[in-house]
Order: sequence, then structure tokens, then C-alpha cells
Amino acid sequence: MTNHTINKLAEYFEKLPGIGPRQARRFVYALLKKDIDFLKDFSALISELKQELNICPDCNKFFETNTGNTKCLICSSKNRNKKILLIVEKDLDSNNIEKSGSYNGLYFVLGGLIPGIGAELPKEVKAKELYTRAEKLISIENLEEIILAFSATPEGENTTIYITKILEPLNTKISRLGRGLSTGTEIEYADSDTLKNALERRRV
Amino acid sequence: MTNHTINKLAEYFEKLPGIGPRQARRFVYALLKKDIDFLKDFSALISELKQELNICPDCNKFFETNTGNTKCLICSSKNRNKKILLIVEKDLDSNNIEKSGSYNGLYFVLGGLIPGIGAELPKEVKAKELYTRAEKLISIENLEEIILAFSATPEGENTTIYITKILEPLNTKISRLGRGLSTGTEIEYADSDTLKNALERRRV
Amino acid sequence: MTNHTINKLAEYFEKLPGIGPRQARRFVYALLKKDIDFLKDFSALISELKQELNICPDCNKFFETNTGNTKCLICSSKNRNKKILLIVEKDLDSNNIEKSGSYNGLYFVLGGLIPGIGAELPKEVKAKELYTRAEKLISIENLEEIILAFSATPEGENTTIYITKILEPLNTKISRLGRGLSTGTEIEYADSDTLKNALERRRV
Amino acid sequence: MTNHTINKLAEYFEKLPGIGPRQARRFVYALLKKDIDFLKDFSALISELKQELNICPDCNKFFETNTGNTKCLICSSKNRNKKILLIVEKDLDSNNIEKSGSYNGLYFVLGGLIPGIGAELPKEVKAKELYTRAEKLISIENLEEIILAFSATPEGENTTIYITKILEPLNTKISRLGRGLSTGTEIEYADSDTLKNALERRRV
Repeated sequence: MTNHTINKLAEYFEKLPGIGPRQARRFVYALLKKDIDFLKDFSALISELKQELNICPDCNKFFETNTGNTKCLICSSKNRNKKILLIVEKDLDSNNIEKSGSYNGLYFVLGGLIPGIGAELPKEVKAKELYTRAEKLISIENLEEIILAFSATPEGENTTIYITKILEPLNTKISRLGRGLSTGTEIEYADSDTLKNALERRRV
Repeated sequence: MTNHTINKLAEYFEKLPGIGPRQARRFVYALLKKDIDFLKDFSALISELKQELNICPDCNKFFETNTGNTKCLICSSKNRNKKILLIVEKDLDSNNIEKSGSYNGLYFVLGGLIPGIGAELPKEVKAKELYTRAEKLISIENLEEIILAFSATPEGENTTIYITKILEPLNTKISRLGRGLSTGTEIEYADSDTLKNALERRRV
Repeated sequence: MTNHTINKLAEYFEKLPGIGPRQARRFVYALLKKDIDFLKDFSALISELKQELNICPDCNKFFETNTGNTKCLICSSKNRNKKILLIVEKDLDSNNIEKSGSYNGLYFVLGGLIPGIGAELPKEVKAKELYTRAEKLISIENLEEIILAFSATPEGENTTIYITKILEPLNTKISRLGRGLSTGTEIEYADSDTLKNALERRRV
Repeated sequence: MTNHTINKLAEYFEKLPGIGPRQARRFVYALLKKDIDFLKDFSALISELKQELNICPDCNKFFETNTGNTKCLICSSKNRNKKILLIVEKDLDSNNIEKSGSYNGLYFVLGGLIPGIGAELPKEVKAKELYTRAEKLISIENLEEIILAFSATPEGENTTIYITKILEPLNTKISRLGRGLSTGTEIEYADSDTLKNALERRRV
């Protein structure tokens, strides 16, 4: 009695992050209520997604091919400070930092985090490419600082340690994001680590 | 700095039920990690969705065109009891009732609920088509009962009242789903309406 | 550095249902902000709680001693229908049913549920007392029906089966609460058991 | 039909933080299942709570009277660094900081936060007492730093600004807790303020 076409499309939706079988099926029925043009356009955007986007050879971020640029907008810009390189896990992290308006240097998207100490380097983690990129920036742009901007999670901490070691031979200043109270943190419920950091890094 | 292609596709995902801008964007980045074949197949399933599926002229449910049938599997089946017609809001409701294995009659998908008393009939609610279908089943199959199986919500209650009135001229038995304790209901927290129903419909 | 008195009182609060160490401590600090009269009155109500309340010899519910009654208000009332006896797990269940205004018979508080088939009868479950009470109501009041009103959970179901067997020798009608859609149940998400019950007990 | 004694005690439980009428009533029924000794001890701890505890004249924290001390353990200790004074909103905040093991100076419990700019000083906020205490510590202990350790909420920020102004005439270094990523913060979801702080206070 179940419907083959619906099930097949639902299986694709289930591959998206956070989507279970029930929601996937609801997506399909929602699409069935849309008109044919909606489906055509949606479908075209998906099939052409990878043609429309390239990975920036400098920073590893996705950018639009049709701009005629060979690099992403940030890497091609003349207004960015090329003496600072900030490393993030993924595009969405750099997007969020851009949105904050508090950074004007260059980025490098690592592609993933390293799950645990001693874990093998996941193949999506572009550690070698990062090394090469940083080396080049040192010789061409006099790179002064590399900022590791990973999440304050065990994986993020671990990746910070790993990447710091990898980049050591470059003899460049390596910093990491400051720890402390984040917006909304209440003293009564803060964990010991956060309190320790907030106390050590108190400011006048 | 934001990415046009990514934003455009994200807007389509935002049209799916329960998806906000953040999750939509995460979907796009998840797709960017898939290989080109995945995107092609996903895209093809979406663009061909409506060609692959037809709406059953009898019950209003979606069914696969490529089976060669002109009706859905339930409406074409010889093993269903054609003397009972169960009305649901949407395909997913009838799918869930089928899964329960406790119904063997025919279905009719109304297409929507009626929001409030005195509200105009939403155009997706196929009230006229239901009347015609029921009339035909009475004359051809000696239809004996119409079951209104809407959710136990204000909209569901209202639709039950409305549809009952519409079908009155047919002079056929109209029933609605039984109310009472549903699985998991605790006496301490049950609402008065549920307790009243559970008491009135107690069984030996 | 931790505070003995505060910890000791917090341990008592932790014995209340759903209260963890953190919330317990917050309760103590909240009390420290109250004036001395609040604490005296609160304390007095707790220490005298059991003097102020008696267990009704007929129905097993708590009732106030200072009313001069020897039974609870429901068991002493002349306006209740003494031909129906409704069995609940606990006082809070009967309170909720009273609040619904849809029952006017007598109650019996069983004191607990029976966890699983074949499980030993927990000592707080007053099965014998229920038998005696029902027997007496049959001979004095011509009891006509016993309603088992347990939650629609595995424990509730199991208790219904157990108590039905226990009361069988009394040769009185034994009913249980009706199952079906409870307020808010949506057809799309309803479990098979609920749908089956709702279909079987549909009403015209 | 409702029970006076139970309702009265439930009303006291409802005065505790986060407790609604339903949970309050469940607390009372939970107490009814405890033995008389439990109730006596619980009751005694509540009624004697304020006799057993005093407010430390130096730091405003609660401490046990029966120790024979006239001050709390921290203020009487010879092992604490008396050149640093950390200001918190409430006892539970200082308890949590003590638990973190990363502070060895003195405390002062302010008693509350200041809700908004221009708001009147709530009477529980001991701003004057803080001034007097800090002044005394400067003359007796050569106090070197006052740390304002309020939650990273609008009220906390506002209180920091207010107290900084109040303490200005003392000409002592005033610091506040460091802001940045707290444990668990993910870059993708961090707010702009937190990212800004984390970037500005990055560390090598």
C-alpha cells in the first residue's frame, strides 16, 4: 500500500541533517501541494548546485562561479587584512563570524574537526592545505597571526591542540578564541572551566 | 559576502514544513558535501514527482502512475469493504490508519480542515467531491456508513460538524471516531473532556 | 565550606518528587528570604499534616479530621450515587475526575498500580480492602457497577486485568474507562492501539 | 470537595521558586506517604532555619551560628587572600565559584541585581554596605582589586556599570569577569557579542 515514489524521495530528505522518516515524508507531501514551477526551480537549483559553486583555492570556502572570480569574495577583496588568518571548521562558522562584523582578516575552512586525541585525521580535515596556505601567506603577505576559532567542545579543543602542533614549524603567532562568560551565562550554573577562564581573563 | 546560490536554494527549503532559515542553510551545505550523482537523483525525483503521481479520482489520494492503474491501490482492490467510507484530512492520516491494520474499507481524503465555526470553506477542502463520491457509493455499492476520522482538535471537531451537515441529505449512517483515553493518558493529568468521554464510553 | 544546615534541609527537599540537589538548595535559599512567620506557619503545616488528615475508612482517601466527620466528604454525602464505585490509583486521580464534573458515584483509592504481569502485589495496593468494600456496598447499597479508572499505561492495563480477576467472585458488572482519541490526538501521529480503539468505539 | 489542609500547605510550596499548583499538590501527597518522624524533622529544620544561620557581617553570606564563629568560614579563614574582593549577586553564585576551586580571595554578596538603567536601587541590593566593606578592606588589608562577578545578562551588565560607578571614589582597581566562549559554545550559533569578545580576548 506504501507509495514507491514518495518513499524514494523521502529517503533523500532523510539524508539531510536532523530529518527523520516522518518529517521526510511530510516534506514530500508538502512538495505535492506546490505547483509544477516550484518543483522545477527547486530541482534545478539542487542539480546545478555544484556547478554554480566552486571551492575557493585559497580558503576552501564555497563561492559563486558566475561572478567570474577565481577566488571567493573575501580572498579577492583588497580591503581585508591579509596579516591575520582565522581557521574555522566549516563555512557556516565563517558566515556567523562575518555576520558579527568583528573580524576583517582572511579565513581558512578546515573542513572538519578531529574527534579525539590520537584519532586518525579525518580525510575532510584539510590540515596539509592549511599548512601550505599559511606558509604562502607568510612569504607573500607577511602573515602575523593565525587564529584558531573552533567551538568550545572537546572536539574543538582537540583540533586546536592538533593544528597548533602542525603549524608550529611556521614560527608564527598562533592564538585561539578567548574563553569566558558567553552571553547569557549565569554564575550560579556556570561550569568550573568557564568560571576559571572568566576569572583568569578578567578585565579592568 | 553572502552567497546568492546558497541563499536561493535555502529559500526553497524554508518552504518545507517546520524548516527555518538556519536549518535551510545547513541543508544546502549538507548537499554540497554529497556527490554529483546524489544531487542528480534527488533533483530528478523532485522534478518528476508530480508526473510519477496522480490523484485518485475516487478517494483523492496520491498514487503511482506507472502501475497502469487509473485508481489508487485501495480503490482498485477487490478485497476492501466498499460499504464503509472513512474520511480523513490528508494522505498521511490514511497512511497511519492503514499502518494500524484496523480498517479495511474505503477512504476519502478531504484535503484540509475547516478552521472555525462560520469560517469560509478553504478551497483545498473537497466537500462537494466528497458528497458526489458518497452519493455514488450509495447507489453502486450500497454504502452503509461514513466514518469521520479527524484529529481531536478544535479544527477537527469543527470539520466533523460541518461535514455531518453536508452529508445529512444522503440519509446514510455517519459516525465519528471514539473519544476516550489514548495510549499513555494519565488520569491525574487528563483534561475534563477526555475524562468525560472515557467515563461515558466505558466498556465492560 | 559547604553549609551543614542548608545541606540537611536541602536533603529533605530532594525527597520530594522531581526535585534534584540544585533545586533543593534553591528552595532553602528562597526560604531564607522569607520572614520568620512564613517559616513557622510552613513548618507547622508540615508537622501537623498527618494529624489534620485521616484516611477515609471507606474509600482510602485523605480527609480533614477537624470536620468532625469519620468519613471523607464524598463517602458521607447523601447526594452521591452509591450504586457505582470508581477505582483510582491515587487521591490526585480522584481529584482530577471530581474536577471534570462528570462522575457522581463513590470512589476507592487503590494506593498504587501493579508494575508487571506476575509481579508481586506491592504492599501499598489495597486489593483486599477493595474486595471487602465492594462486597459491603453490594449487600448494603445494591452496588451495580465497578469502574476501573487507571491510566492508559502498561501498569494501568496490568492493574485493570489483576483487579478484574480479584473482583470476579462478586458477580458485579466491572467496566473500564473507554479508550479512543483523547483531546489533542492527531490522526497522523496516533499509535495503532489508539486508532484501533477509536475505530471500534466509533459513535453515531 | 477540595481539601483545606492540603491546599493550605500546597500554597506554601507554591511560594518556592519554579513550583506551580500541580507540583505543589504532588509534594503534599508525597509528604503524606512519609512517616511521622520524617515530617517532624523536616518541619523542625524549616522552623529553626533562621536561628541556625546568621548573615556574615563582613560578606553578607549565610553561615552556621553553632560554630561559635561571628563570621562565615571564608571571612574568618587565615588562608584567604584578603587583597581581592569578589562581588556576587547571591550565596549560590559564591558557592558555585568556590566549587570551581579557582578563587581564593574574599567575597561580598550584593543581595540582588539592578534591573535596568535608571531603575531605582532595589532595597535588597547592599550597595552602601559594599562600599563600607571595600573601604575598610582598603585601610586594613590593603585591598588591591574588586572583581564584579555578575551573570552575563542585561541585569548583570547593568549592575556592573552601576557598582563600578559607586566604587569609583575608592580609587581601587575594579575588574569584571572575562567574556568569551563558554564551555559548549559553538561558533555556528554563537551570538555576535560573544564572538566579538572571544576575538578581542584571544590568547596565544
